Amino acid sequence: DVANLMGELSPGDIAHLISSSPPPFRHVLWQLLEPEQEADVLNELPDELRNVFLEEMQPEALADIVGKLDDDDVADILQELPDALTNQVLEVMDEQDRARIETVLGYSDDVAGGLMSTDTITVRADMKLEVVLRYLRRHAVLPENTDAVIVVNRKDQYVGLLPVRTLLVSDPGVSVREMMDTTRDPIPAMLPATEVARRFERNDWISAPVIDDDGALLGRITIDDIVDVIREEADHSLTSLARIGEEDTFSTVLHTAPRRAIWLGINLLTAFIASSVINLFQGTIEKVVALAVLMPIVASMGGIAGTQSLTVLVRGMAMGHINKRNEGWLIGREAMVGVLNGVLWASVVAVAASLWFDDWTLGFVIAAALIINLITAGVTGAVLPLILQRLSIDPALAGGVVLTTVTDVVGFLSFLGLATLFYM
Amino acid sequence: DVANLMGELSPGDIAHLISSSPPPFRHVLWQLLEPEQEADVLNELPDELRNVFLEEMQPEALADIVGKLDDDDVADILQELPDALTNQVLEVMDEQDRARIETVLGYSDDVAGGLMSTDTITVRADMKLEVVLRYLRRHAVLPENTDAVIVVNRKDQYVGLLPVRTLLVSDPGVSVREMMDTTRDPIPAMLPATEVARRFERNDWISAPVIDDDGALLGRITIDDIVDVIREEADHSLTSLARIGEEDTFSTVLHTAPRRAIWLGINLLTAFIASSVINLFQGTIEKVVALAVLMPIVASMGGIAGTQSLTVLVRGMAMGHINKRNEGWLIGREAMVGVLNGVLWASVVAVAASLWFDDWTLGFVIAAALIINLITAGVTGAVLPLILQRLSIDPALAGGVVLTTVTDVVGFLSFLGLATLFYM
Ligand SMILES: [Mg+2]
Ligand SMILES: [Mg+2]
Ligand SMILES: [Mg+2]
Ligand SMILES: [Mg+2]
Ligand SMILES: [Mg+2]
Ligand SMILES: [Mg+2]
Ligand SMILES: [Mg+2]
Ligand SMILES: [Mg+2]
Ligand SMILES: [Mg+2]
Ligand SMILES: [Mg+2]
Ligand SMILES: [Mg+2]
Ligand SMILES: [Mg+2]
Ligand SMILES: [Mg+2]
Repeated sequence: DVANLMGELSPGDIAHLISSSPPPFRHVLWQLLEPEQEADVLNELPDELRNVFLEEMQPEALADIVGKLDDDDVADILQELPDALTNQVLEVMDEQDRARIETVLGYSDDVAGGLMSTDTITVRADMKLEVVLRYLRRHAVLPENTDAVIVVNRKDQYVGLLPVRTLLVSDPGVSVREMMDTTRDPIPAMLPATEVARRFERNDWISAPVIDDDGALLGRITIDDIVDVIREEADHSLTSLARIGEEDTFSTVLHTAPRRAIWLGINLLTAFIASSVINLFQGTIEKVVALAVLMPIVASMGGIAGTQSLTVLVRGMAMGHINKRNEGWLIGREAMVGVLNGVLWASVVAVAASLWFDDWTLGFVIAAALIINLITAGVTGAVLPLILQRLSIDPALAGGVVLTTVTDVVGFLSFLGLATLFYM
Repeated sequence: DVANLMGELSPGDIAHLISSSPPPFRHVLWQLLEPEQEADVLNELPDELRNVFLEEMQPEALADIVGKLDDDDVADILQELPDALTNQVLEVMDEQDRARIETVLGYSDDVAGGLMSTDTITVRADMKLEVVLRYLRRHAVLPENTDAVIVVNRKDQYVGLLPVRTLLVSDPGVSVREMMDTTRDPIPAMLPATEVARRFERNDWISAPVIDDDGALLGRITIDDIVDVIREEADHSLTSLARIGEEDTFSTVLHTAPRRAIWLGINLLTAFIASSVINLFQGTIEKVVALAVLMPIVASMGGIAGTQSLTVLVRGMAMGHINKRNEGWLIGREAMVGVLNGVLWASVVAVAASLWFDDWTLGFVIAAALIINLITAGVTGAVLPLILQRLSIDPALAGGVVLTTVTDVVGFLSFLGLATLFYM
């Protein structure tokens, strides 16, 4: 049966099974878990889901669960709990554990300090490798993902790394100093998590040491937690651009509807702005009703072109590609792409519209409006995220709304405005 | 100067510097590289950029560079080259290297076989740990990210893993059999790369063994290459939904414009479909020109709501959350969210439109159209990706175009159609 099956799955697989189930089944699956599986499964669940289960637990059960996890994971869980509950859990821990957790809890989970585990193996540079090997052997288990031991000085300051690969193949008689790698820069505790992730990606690290302002070793970050940062960061760009709030695939109607409603409401406001532009030209539309037929084309093409530019910029920003020196080049590139694609599709639309309504003025007007709107779209799509970033507004989240408002307004204004000049 | 500076950067950082530079500067930076840096930097560049530099190289220079890389990376590079050049490079390799590369080249780079390196360390179950330690010590270096040695039988079939963490803390007198981990399932060579990535993510692996149909060990996959798979997969959803082709942040105008033009052209076609729906109602619009003012609101709200549903589904599919058992629940959820948000914003729009144009019929008509379109949007956004997936069409890529066509057509048809019933 299901309970037996779950005994054979890894915590990650069980977490995935729970994540892939609509809410009513999730609690059933959770009930089927063996108590000793709960900690690891909880740890692999996405944040929103984990919080659902955590909120239903007693402090004692929580303390029991967090006792089995790495301190970065414990800190992660405690950060999400109400402060009163956090304190209750900390109180039932032993003193040493509590001190370690409090170190990590001192950092928010979007900087290096919040991602680290304080569980490290450190050695001194003057030790011989055989001493290091004997020292390791005194441990019952080594911390997860130990690909290197960390070399520190008397003040506990970071000096270098001794990779396990090196340790295993080197002459046991030589000293740590001779074999250690001192070229690896340690990670400052306040470095943003996204920048930590980029360093891991670029250098293919498995783990990295974290230091405080004085160079003292605080802990280490491991790749499994970085994979989660990368996934969350990529997911954030996607959900922001699509204007969905933080939701899991199987959020309930009552959880989902209000989060989406907010964005629909903001979009409604901007749609009324576009409508009031059209409203200015009621007289022109009454005379040439073909304008009403064709005007969505101008707005829609501008919206798509602008979203293309915006996404390239938002994505480039997320990858850390964009800086003051190259942003001018990018704006120029987007403007030129707007010109070329504007001219291309304007020609097609001009001919199609002229033939459809047997009116070459109409063809000329829509072509001009389309070129104006595609260039506006390209430039706005490039400039807007740069401006928003300087205002500390998330470009992925706010960019799309502002952008389509601009392309709608410019699209309707140029098309109906030019038509008024030619027909009235 | 810059050349000196680049001598101190890691290959990943140099690759990032090149990626963050507009095209003219990229070649200058590449020229500044020391010859011995070229292989590692090339390896860290994104595919599109790497190919630019590779295309300019001689076969001898290429052979020299690939000689320094892991075989998964070599295979990755050779797969992108024209076949004639691939064969020239393979010919100048030594026989053993060539055989290994050809094993990996036998698999496409979107399955496990194409991600693996054949450079593994294998031991037998009956060896004592001290023998394993002596055997490791005979290597000059161990393969990157060796967190475990692989246990195989006489037929070279996978038996289990001996983690280095275990090796370092266990009694050297015991046998591999007593300490090895046999619970880790190996990865079949034909498993899709995205599924491999999910297994790594869920289980926090550093490396995993790859086997063929007979259980024989072929190689191992390491987390650094999985991080790249995760990044590319997330990036694919984003760029597909935004309808930009494969492009890097600093693609030139002539590279970018045609790729975006295709999507603009497809959008133009669908915009003409929407226009021809409006065209059916010319008479109604001539009589009540306020309809032309308000009709973009109905279409735009449907587009946003539909994109929200579509993105949740596409994202859920990418995470492997969605299957036959839960898709009905999801469609129902999206329909219900459509009903709730439809009723909510329809009420607001009804009052606003009625007051604006002093016409309560207009308010009723737009409210009804909005509810119809938001429910359509929710259901289409949920059903469409499921249908596209069954037709083996990428839902992220094709979904948005089809979806907005549906919401435009249904939006204009319901709004102008209802208006015709009430006014004509
Ligand atoms: Mg944390
Ligand atoms: Mg978190
Ligand atoms: Mg708290
Ligand atoms: Mg990498
Ligand atoms: Mg590598
Ligand atoms: Mg973990
Ligand atoms: Mg951890
Ligand atoms: Mg590739
Ligand atoms: Mg490959
Ligand atoms: Mg080839
Ligand atoms: Mg994980
Ligand atoms: Mg590799
Ligand atoms: Mg690689």
